[in-house]
Formats: sequence, C-alpha cells, structure tokens
Amino acid sequence: MPPVITAFASSPDHGQGLARDMRVRWALEEAGQPYDVRLVSFKAMKEPAHRALHPFGQIPTYEEGGLVLFESGAIVLHIAQRHAGLLPVEASARARAIAWMFAALNTVEPPILELQTAKFAEGDKPWTSERLPLIKERIRHRLDELAVRLGDADWLDGAFSAGDLMMVHTLQRLRPSGLLDEYPNLAAYVGRGEARPAWRRAFAAQLAVFTGQPSGG
Amino acid sequence: MPPVITAFASSPDHGQGLARDMRVRWALEEAGQPYDVRLVSFKAMKEPAHRALHPFGQIPTYEEGGLVLFESGAIVLHIAQRHAGLLPVEASARARAIAWMFAALNTVEPPILELQTAKFAEGDKPWTSERLPLIKERIRHRLDELAVRLGDADWLDGAFSAGDLMMVHTLQRLRPSGLLDEYPNLAAYVGRGEARPAWRRAFAAQLAVFTGQPSGG
Repeated sequence: MPPVITAFASSPDHGQGLARDMRVRWALEEAGQPYDVRLVSFKAMKEPAHRALHPFGQIPTYEEGGLVLFESGAIVLHIAQRHAGLLPVEASARARAIAWMFAALNTVEPPILELQTAKFAEGDKPWTSERLPLIKERIRHRLDELAVRLGDADWLDGAFSAGDLMMVHTLQRLRPSGLLDEYPNLAAYVGRGEARPAWRRAFAAQLAVFTGQPSGG
Repeated sequence: MPPVITAFASSPDHGQGLARDMRVRWALEEAGQPYDVRLVSFKAMKEPAHRALHPFGQIPTYEEGGLVLFESGAIVLHIAQRHAGLLPVEASARARAIAWMFAALNTVEPPILELQTAKFAEGDKPWTSERLPLIKERIRHRLDELAVRLGDADWLDGAFSAGDLMMVHTLQRLRPSGLLDEYPNLAAYVGRGEARPAWRRAFAAQLAVFTGQPSGG
C-alpha cells in the first residue's frame, strides 16, 4: 500500500503549486515512491476526522501503515531519511542538508508568510499599503544573505538535497511579488529546481487536481 | 573536545532565556552532554568570520569536530539523533516527535514572530496599536488548536521529546504578552518544561552570561 497524502480539494492558488502538498509530492517523486492523494475541502479540514490527523486542520498529512504525520517539513524529512535521493549519506553533509530545511522554514519563510498575511488577512486595512514596503525590506534582508551564501553554486551545499527542495518551494511563493527576480542567482536556483523531472511530475499532478485533467503520469 | 555553541555576548532579554541558544543548551543538558560556549557581539555576528558559520548572521551555531551547523531546530535534532533522551526509539513515535519540532517552528512560531516584529520593528508606527489585537487573534487561533490537542496530557505525544522542547521554548516567548496565561493547560505544560532539571541547568547557564556570575554547574 503506498502512502496517502492529503491536498486541497479546491486549489487556493489555481494550480500554481504553492500549497505545501507540493513539497511532499516533489519529495516522493525524487525518491521514486508512488503515493495516493486524498483531497479534502476547506470545511472538512477543520472537522474532527481531519484534525485527528492534523491538529491544526491543514494539509498535507501523510499516512503509511499505522504512521500518521503532519507538517510538510517533517514529512519530507521522513521520506528523505527512508529513501535515497534527498539527503547525502555522509553524516556531516546530511546534518547540514537538514539545517537548510530548517533555514527555509524558520528563517526564510517567516517574513514571506508575513507578506501573505498582510495581503490576505489585512488586505482591507488602511495601513497595509504602507506596511508592504517594510515587509519587503525584511524579506530582502534574508534574500541578500541567502544570495551571498549561494553565490554561483547550483545548490546550497553540494548536491541537490531536501534542503534545496524546501528552500526552492519557499522562494517560489515570492514570485508574484517580483522580489525573486531582484536576485538573478536565486531566480536561477529556483529555475533549476523547477527543471528537475521530479518537480515537473509533482507539479503536473497537483495541477491536474485543479484542471480535472489526468496528469499523464 | 565538547561541541562549541555560540550565544549573544549581551543578552537582548536580560537573561530571560528566550534567545535560541537556550534550545540548544537545554537539549545538550537533556542528553547529558558537556559543551562550551563562545559569546559573540551583535557586531561580530554580522562579520564574515561568523557568517562563515551562519549565513544569516545569527546565533546559535554548533561546531563539533569538522561539523558546523546553524538553525536551532537542526542543532537540536542533530543532538537528539545522536544521544538518548530526546526522541523515542520506536520509528513511528520518533517521526511524530520530529513532526512536533516542525509544528513548533513552522506553525506555532510564525504568528509569535509577527508579534515580536510588530513591537520591535514597527513599534513606532501609527498602525501598530490597532494591529496588535489582530496578531493576537492569529496566535490564539493556533493556541486554541494546540490546547485541544494537548488536553490534559503531560506532553504532546507520549514521553517528553525534542518536540516538547521546541514547543515549550516557542510558547515561553508569549509570556510577556499574557496570552499564555489564557490557556491553563498550555501554561502548565510550559511549567512542566521549566521544572525539568535539564531546563534549570540550561537556564542558569544562559543567565550567568548576563549576570556575570558563574552558574554553579
């Protein structure tokens, strides 16, 4: 029985692949593992049956045998630890790749989430237009540092890893703001992620939920 | 040679233990591992020598032999994977404990960081007094869900784990706002964390940096 993940029944971003199930789909594709998807509505996400899987009523979740996991970071790490293709074998390199996963989620993503919150939760407030430039400066502060560290390397630390997977997906959320394009090496880095066959298969699969067309995979 | 971590030379919270080195100190104490601390000034944190260890110019870092790690979540996970005391041995329980680490950092902490940003980065803005109640509602939304899941259990999933360590420290940052005390079971949960001998030793050690007094350990 392949693992079962959950995803939005109705894509909030119209199939742009920005929801967090994309991270799990991509990891499973990199690992060459089949999976099944159960779609959940916004209403069902907040009901007890789903909350038993995910205490915060979100997607994705991951069910495999008797194991139930939530949090995309934890699910990707679990997949990466059990299958080849997402983490280096050597112990120190492996620990450093995991550090980049945490950096994506706890250092780079928080100001990006703040931008989303400003637009979606405070978009109607009189202060939001004045706040957006401040939030963007805080994002740039992190992107400046990330761009320096990446330099002209292909990936953050040696070969592609789960750390790159999380960072690329985190940065993709910036594309609508135009901020990503201010950093040519970061934009190229995201482009390299999107050129991976595993990313393309995962993207097609999540898009198919929105279009109602089979992903051909 | 014990590992070397970095911490603020000058404690921004006057020794309240809210900086992220506390997470690493606590994990090392739970694991019964000695460590050394190198203090860094705010200025030195942003210079090339420290940025070589931490691309975002922050603390803590972790150096052990040839390994250099940054991100408190990654460092705590590394310690937890190498030593007994912070993760269950059984594979599924272990994966679930790690999921709680990610939940603390990527689901519970972002709105708490937003509250800190509102106070410290936008404290002088005319809109901040109107925004604070909105941010607090977003935090309460997460705390409501966390309080339901915790219920009357001692810890989030069975025995104390690195997931509880990260969650307790994340929630401690709420104490000045009064929000934590709105949730008696969460306040008691944080209290149980603070009653652990390992937490007390870690707290004393970080406080000693601020007071200049030896921590007696």
